[in-house]
Amino acid sequence: MTRKFIETGPGLPNWPNPISHAVVVGKMCFVSGQLSVNEGGEYVEGTVAEEATLAFNNVFAALKAAGFDKSEIVYIDIAFSDLAKLEEVTHVFFPNAGCYLTWNGQHG
Amino acid sequence: MTRKFIETGPGLPNWPNPISHAVVVGKMCFVSGQLSVNEGGEYVEGTVAEEATLAFNNVFAALKAAGFDKSEIVYIDIAFSDLAKLEEVTHVFFPNAGCYLTWNGQHG
Amino acid sequence: MTRKFIETGPGLPNWPNPISHAVVVGKMCFVSGQLSVNEGGEYVEGTVAEEATLAFNNVFAALKAAGFDKSEIVYIDIAFSDLAKLEEVTHVFFPNAGCYLTWNGQHG
Repeated sequence: MTRKFIETGPGLPNWPNPISHAVVVGKMCFVSGQLSVNEGGEYVEGTVAEEATLAFNNVFAALKAAGFDKSEIVYIDIAFSDLAKLEEVTHVFFPNAGCYLTWNGQHG
Repeated sequence: MTRKFIETGPGLPNWPNPISHAVVVGKMCFVSGQLSVNEGGEYVEGTVAEEATLAFNNVFAALKAAGFDKSEIVYIDIAFSDLAKLEEVTHVFFPNAGCYLTWNGQHG
Repeated sequence: MTRKFIETGPGLPNWPNPISHAVVVGKMCFVSGQLSVNEGGEYVEGTVAEEATLAFNNVFAALKAAGFDKSEIVYIDIAFSDLAKLEEVTHVFFPNAGCYLTWNGQHG
């Protein structure tokens, strides 16, 4: 099947590496790992909630650029350096995406 | 496509966060990360084999609540704090699921 | 749906555990986590680029044994012990696969 690579889009960080923000194949969209990074590609340090908000906004921007909506998310893989922050991160995602999170958390 | 969120079911842990146990979309079911946690949502400490058994049982319970069976599993992502435990964990899964494991292990 | 488990194939490491190298279901192929491991199943230590090359070659061999091609890859999950090595790893993948990488990197 044809793959459509999403490399740029409104609000998406500018990456120096040959990594696309998302790839669309058939009816599915796979989004690359997103971080607390601004449009210039620089890491923005903040509280857990602030960093999670920026990272999720990058996920949503990648979806939009790919022609998808956050209401179509079915699975998110999150890496935690401290799993105790799960609740904070979840409560950033929940009201923004308007849905439950199906996730797999990795404890770094 | 319509998403069906599985939030509760027989044997499934009671979670305080807005995280579903699984989401069904089309013919696919995505199960959230499961831990060695009992129905009350409390972490149950044990040997690697004991903790893996409980975690896999939670995966199977989530699948069942979603209308799927463990014979339909195609991929599992497992995080290890010690990759040397791979063999023990694999041998918990294998006889229970009756199939080979296709997996991606993360070393924490 | 029927699952086809890929257990052996040209160039694929010999594993002692009941873990398949890949599973095919419908039009999708899920490849197991691959390491810098030779056909005998032994870990081969090297530079980041050398280890990544061997691991990616194992991924490509698994795909080939499953009847798929690296030009059909849509998503790769990579675990890094040091995320600073991202660029090196990416530049191993890029020319070999001939496509952008859609990935989720875990920092161990």
